[in-house]
Amino acid sequence: MNQTKKRKICFVITSTIHYARSKLILVKLKKRDDVDLQIVIGGSAILSKYGEVDKWLKHDGLDVSAVVSITLEGGNNVSMAKTAGLGVIEFTSTFEKLKPDIVVLRADRYEVLSAAIAAAYLNIPIAHIEGGDVSGNIDESVRHAITKLAHIHFATNEDSKKRIIQMGERPDYVFNVGCPGLEIAAKNNFKITNRIINNMGLGARVDINKNFLIVTQHPVTTEIEMNEKNIIETIKSISELNIPTIWFWPNVDAGTDRISGMLRRYREKHNLDRSVLFIKFLLPEEFISLLKKTSCLVGNSSAGIKECSYLKIPVVNIGTRQDGRMRAENVIDVDYDRRKIKKAILKQISHGPYPSSDIYYKPNSSKKIVDILSNINLYIQKKFNDDNV
Amino acid sequence: MNQTKKRKICFVITSTIHYARSKLILVKLKKRDDVDLQIVIGGSAILSKYGEVDKWLKHDGLDVSAVVSITLEGGNNVSMAKTAGLGVIEFTSTFEKLKPDIVVLRADRYEVLSAAIAAAYLNIPIAHIEGGDVSGNIDESVRHAITKLAHIHFATNEDSKKRIIQMGERPDYVFNVGCPGLEIAAKNNFKITNRIINNMGLGARVDINKNFLIVTQHPVTTEIEMNEKNIIETIKSISELNIPTIWFWPNVDAGTDRISGMLRRYREKHNLDRSVLFIKFLLPEEFISLLKKTSCLVGNSSAGIKECSYLKIPVVNIGTRQDGRMRAENVIDVDYDRRKIKKAILKQISHGPYPSSDIYYKPNSSKKIVDILSNINLYIQKKFNDDNV
Amino acid sequence: MNQTKKRKICFVITSTIHYARSKLILVKLKKRDDVDLQIVIGGSAILSKYGEVDKWLKHDGLDVSAVVSITLEGGNNVSMAKTAGLGVIEFTSTFEKLKPDIVVLRADRYEVLSAAIAAAYLNIPIAHIEGGDVSGNIDESVRHAITKLAHIHFATNEDSKKRIIQMGERPDYVFNVGCPGLEIAAKNNFKITNRIINNMGLGARVDINKNFLIVTQHPVTTEIEMNEKNIIETIKSISELNIPTIWFWPNVDAGTDRISGMLRRYREKHNLDRSVLFIKFLLPEEFISLLKKTSCLVGNSSAGIKECSYLKIPVVNIGTRQDGRMRAENVIDVDYDRRKIKKAILKQISHGPYPSSDIYYKPNSSKKIVDILSNINLYIQKKFNDDNV
Amino acid sequence: MNQTKKRKICFVITSTIHYARSKLILVKLKKRDDVDLQIVIGGSAILSKYGEVDKWLKHDGLDVSAVVSITLEGGNNVSMAKTAGLGVIEFTSTFEKLKPDIVVLRADRYEVLSAAIAAAYLNIPIAHIEGGDVSGNIDESVRHAITKLAHIHFATNEDSKKRIIQMGERPDYVFNVGCPGLEIAAKNNFKITNRIINNMGLGARVDINKNFLIVTQHPVTTEIEMNEKNIIETIKSISELNIPTIWFWPNVDAGTDRISGMLRRYREKHNLDRSVLFIKFLLPEEFISLLKKTSCLVGNSSAGIKECSYLKIPVVNIGTRQDGRMRAENVIDVDYDRRKIKKAILKQISHGPYPSSDIYYKPNSSKKIVDILSNINLYIQKKFNDDNV
Repeated sequence: MNQTKKRKICFVITSTIHYARSKLILVKLKKRDDVDLQIVIGGSAILSKYGEVDKWLKHDGLDVSAVVSITLEGGNNVSMAKTAGLGVIEFTSTFEKLKPDIVVLRADRYEVLSAAIAAAYLNIPIAHIEGGDVSGNIDESVRHAITKLAHIHFATNEDSKKRIIQMGERPDYVFNVGCPGLEIAAKNNFKITNRIINNMGLGARVDINKNFLIVTQHPVTTEIEMNEKNIIETIKSISELNIPTIWFWPNVDAGTDRISGMLRRYREKHNLDRSVLFIKFLLPEEFISLLKKTSCLVGNSSAGIKECSYLKIPVVNIGTRQDGRMRAENVIDVDYDRRKIKKAILKQISHGPYPSSDIYYKPNSSKKIVDILSNINLYIQKKFNDDNV
Repeated sequence: MNQTKKRKICFVITSTIHYARSKLILVKLKKRDDVDLQIVIGGSAILSKYGEVDKWLKHDGLDVSAVVSITLEGGNNVSMAKTAGLGVIEFTSTFEKLKPDIVVLRADRYEVLSAAIAAAYLNIPIAHIEGGDVSGNIDESVRHAITKLAHIHFATNEDSKKRIIQMGERPDYVFNVGCPGLEIAAKNNFKITNRIINNMGLGARVDINKNFLIVTQHPVTTEIEMNEKNIIETIKSISELNIPTIWFWPNVDAGTDRISGMLRRYREKHNLDRSVLFIKFLLPEEFISLLKKTSCLVGNSSAGIKECSYLKIPVVNIGTRQDGRMRAENVIDVDYDRRKIKKAILKQISHGPYPSSDIYYKPNSSKKIVDILSNINLYIQKKFNDDNV
Repeated sequence: MNQTKKRKICFVITSTIHYARSKLILVKLKKRDDVDLQIVIGGSAILSKYGEVDKWLKHDGLDVSAVVSITLEGGNNVSMAKTAGLGVIEFTSTFEKLKPDIVVLRADRYEVLSAAIAAAYLNIPIAHIEGGDVSGNIDESVRHAITKLAHIHFATNEDSKKRIIQMGERPDYVFNVGCPGLEIAAKNNFKITNRIINNMGLGARVDINKNFLIVTQHPVTTEIEMNEKNIIETIKSISELNIPTIWFWPNVDAGTDRISGMLRRYREKHNLDRSVLFIKFLLPEEFISLLKKTSCLVGNSSAGIKECSYLKIPVVNIGTRQDGRMRAENVIDVDYDRRKIKKAILKQISHGPYPSSDIYYKPNSSKKIVDILSNINLYIQKKFNDDNV
Repeated sequence: MNQTKKRKICFVITSTIHYARSKLILVKLKKRDDVDLQIVIGGSAILSKYGEVDKWLKHDGLDVSAVVSITLEGGNNVSMAKTAGLGVIEFTSTFEKLKPDIVVLRADRYEVLSAAIAAAYLNIPIAHIEGGDVSGNIDESVRHAITKLAHIHFATNEDSKKRIIQMGERPDYVFNVGCPGLEIAAKNNFKITNRIINNMGLGARVDINKNFLIVTQHPVTTEIEMNEKNIIETIKSISELNIPTIWFWPNVDAGTDRISGMLRRYREKHNLDRSVLFIKFLLPEEFISLLKKTSCLVGNSSAGIKECSYLKIPVVNIGTRQDGRMRAENVIDVDYDRRKIKKAILKQISHGPYPSSDIYYKPNSSKKIVDILSNINLYIQKKFNDDNV
């Protein structure tokens, strides 16, 4: 009898949000008999200040195959670029050791680009989730560069699928499976409590059973000189509104140290501690549960565009970071301008929940991804396709 | 009075062929008063076994701003990937020091990808020469990934220009300027001699004033296990033909050590020294001058597709490395099969020179590139464009 | 006439304390006509959370020749080791570019080891300040390893000079010049004020014109699992004493993130904000001025052993980090034990200032170092010497 | 019953000569029930041009735990230094993954220093073989730097043991076990044949059953500008002697590309192919067997000082590379001077075999090393010892 070789699928997790959106995929892959699941964690996902993803994986019964420690200090463009370089070196050693049949990557960060380059030069086929989206930031360039290195594409919406094909990818390897993060959001039953939230942060106590805002504003790496000036507009608008607010610290991108610095300095100067609770991170299910309770999400997180479109949450999206991403009607876009931000927040609060949109949602996203990863024919040599344009 | 700031244009040279094709651009940039030319050399271009480009630059009166030493030994996929990673780190430090306004890159090698990533994360606009081409090898993926990180595109032919625009690049920043290497080939007046050639190599003496072949066959990184088997077909066909031949050693890509090993072993076994002169590299003007004299170029070099189309040289292109690249009628494509290779070579010899083609040629390529680099408005934040599709 | 070539002396600064102790040397080197001073900054010295040394240099009129950005996030053993590795790579590129005649290094940190290795393999003679000391921590091993790579040795005390010679170094290249940091401390006229101090930190207001403690306790990298447990003893003793205290955050060594985490958590739990002001860093002259005013320095900083011996300050030295370093009578050594710490602090407060010791002090340290660096004959090939043992 | 945890002993092999001298240790460690042997290979040992050690290990039934690919191209000081830096990064990841209880290193090369630094910062005790020797080259500095990072020392002779203790190491952790390479030489029964030798190389046929010389001359990294000039003296002396000679290519140190270049160029010019067979490498047992048959070993290899002292082989040691190493009477030292080299070779040939010396030999070296590695109490924190001086 012929014993079929298990397909070795290597899932790379370099940020906590990646894990938050991928958990169902991992759990399903682990259950399959024909798959040997390898999980590689690294980058900011393993740093204590951005949430240590190894603890979450352990909690969910998932094993780690390798840890890739590559993040440089600095929170600036140089540290971001060098982290990418060190990432290529370390992912190369890691993939050479693990010898996966496929490497699965998500989104558009520099650690993800590192892993893509390592896999590409080692002739390992790449599956890429969330390609084809458009946005601002350096992520816009990097996302499409990764698409051009990848072999299998899991777009989260129809527009992105079209763009991926337009860029010359083989149509039979491009799938619109919806955003796996929304499937998780849809199924989430976790009940967040005041106790959990208020033990996690610093600053004011916030009662999440009453009206409250969530703010999460990341640096824009292509506007590096403006990040401080821009965050002040948000700080002042929140200070002046004086509504209970839960504020998440920014991610590891270039500019993060400066934004964090502004937050620390202005916390006191503008009395933010009166109304604002500062939190570093929550577990994915906690975050989704909290999101469902907020009156309005403010900032420039992709969760505002994606998760909130389905969860009906009003969103005030500030600045250029999400430029061009397909939106449902739950989003009001505003400039870096405290008066406009304030006005938009008040408008969203008075509007309340929106109808649920399915532009990013499809049922069974994770099942579809897992089925394709497990069964699709793999190829190495890419070929530009322009038949469908 | 207002003193205009000079535009700092940083030209990156990581392979000798890059210099061979870019010399006119560099010389013209250097002469401009409004440009501060920075030349960064590195990668295989600075290694003695692939030709030390610093000596060529010195010879041509061009100064080097920085040297980037990054190439790992091994000649395999791991060394190629790690070189790319180390390259990102070192180009980041270099660009951070030089602070150029534009970085100019050419083609599709891993060192070029390194430089592109470094520049992208440092928010330095990238100009890219020779994007949009299609081919085999890992270069195919990497070339398009670089396009998605770049801001200004100098395509060498109309098809490539269309592909670049199709991939979502701004049409007003995509230019078909022809291949600058062909402009150099067209203007080349150097007269190569038997003395030069026969002093450079090992093996048989070849009289370049009579019929002779040139062979240059590089490894295909995506067919790594097949490279040895494939090169043997070429070795045997050349051995059996027993026509005077000048054979260039392969480049630094993964697989090169194995191909070189085969050449060394088979040189003796198949009596190649009877008819074959082995050469490491020639100066660009020497190579073009030699090319003009050959009866047929055999192998998988892009010079066969590009330079030879204009220079009327018959070419036997072996295998997949140039798959998909636009061809003039001078090329016969064959598989890795000694009989087919032999047959094609004999056919090309008896055919003799082809009509000159201008699919890759435009007059004044270098002037056009220099004018655009010096004057075009620069931007940082990229935006996917699909208006023109 | 014969024009003498200037000697290129490259001073490497990778921590703020290094600059604090070396400023006079730099200022004197800069003034010499026969010296071309190169200053390379990098490592934790350029990170905002450990004090940005470039601003200090600018303030003091000193130019930076190169910036070396190498520090990995994590605050653990892995990040420390990888930073050392990246440091070797980047210092190599930097020295290759600057081509110094001598590289000057201080002390025993991993970034310093990096620079030593880079210089050693590039055949650049190394001058090393503060070698020969003994202590705990990984620094103990690294300090002596650097000695064995160095060519000129500036010991800060007689015992260390003897140890360096015992290790096989040439006696005519080993000099006891005293600790240049103490010369700076001796000459310091800066007057620190309540206004400066209380604007720099978070927590309680401290009146520095009354009794107050300074605490500065760094992680011990060779006791990595114990650092949290050990710091708690200090936290509790300070909490129980309830004396006004200025507490400096720990340095970048492995374990720092955990110690910082403990401090953040326990600040609230043990009411540290009642009596403790937390400060990240002060300018060197500010720190010395503050030191002169404290009733007692508590923790494991080398300043307690060195600067305080001369400045008469009572010191409670906790744990193993300074094990074996020569002490004056101003130091009481205690275990990680809150009762012993408390008892020792109270004893030191009631004792008051000690007689000034000159075990680490010599007048004109900086002048001696500068004269030797400028004039000594340089050699490359080292040779083990055992004549003097 | 209490199950004792196996001690994880990690043996690092970065050059083929390291394996050649360590094989018996590895075989014995593998057989022990209380030891979990980990073998890490890397550096030049895995490159095809210096002998692929993985094939030798496989042949000897030893498994590889990890491969560390770090060597940069260039054969110069920069590539040597950067390889060291990349080595620190990769050995850190490797040791972090393998979590050994001891890391075992040998000798003084840059890859070995890398591994020592990685282990030191990860708090893994280091056992070091062949410390305490003196020599020329950068190896002299690096060897002692490694000693100062190591915890257990296996000196190969009494002088070296004394030096290690003098440098401040604990005497109870310093052992003179003799050179394990000599134990291998002593036990070697392999019979080398003309067929093996002449199939391995290029150039003249050499009959090893008659008189013949062996030449092996490595670059001296601290005399980098002189290496070409120096090797010419040897080339000319061998050319003029016109005695059958087996010449081994130099190792990977800085300067190797230039020496190899000279050899290639002069091979023809000085008719070396008349009498010289060039060989890249032999298996350890082949090399020892060949050594026993030669009339004289010429060059600067440590085998001339160590293995040949016991094997009675006459040696002409050229230049500074072995300066200071303890010698038996079998060695004649000469400068880089063709006449002196010729004269010394002729003198050694006419002298014939010397009495066997045991200055580097002790029976059961490998058993002693294995027993100590398996049983000795381990410690992390080092402390300078000067009791015994």
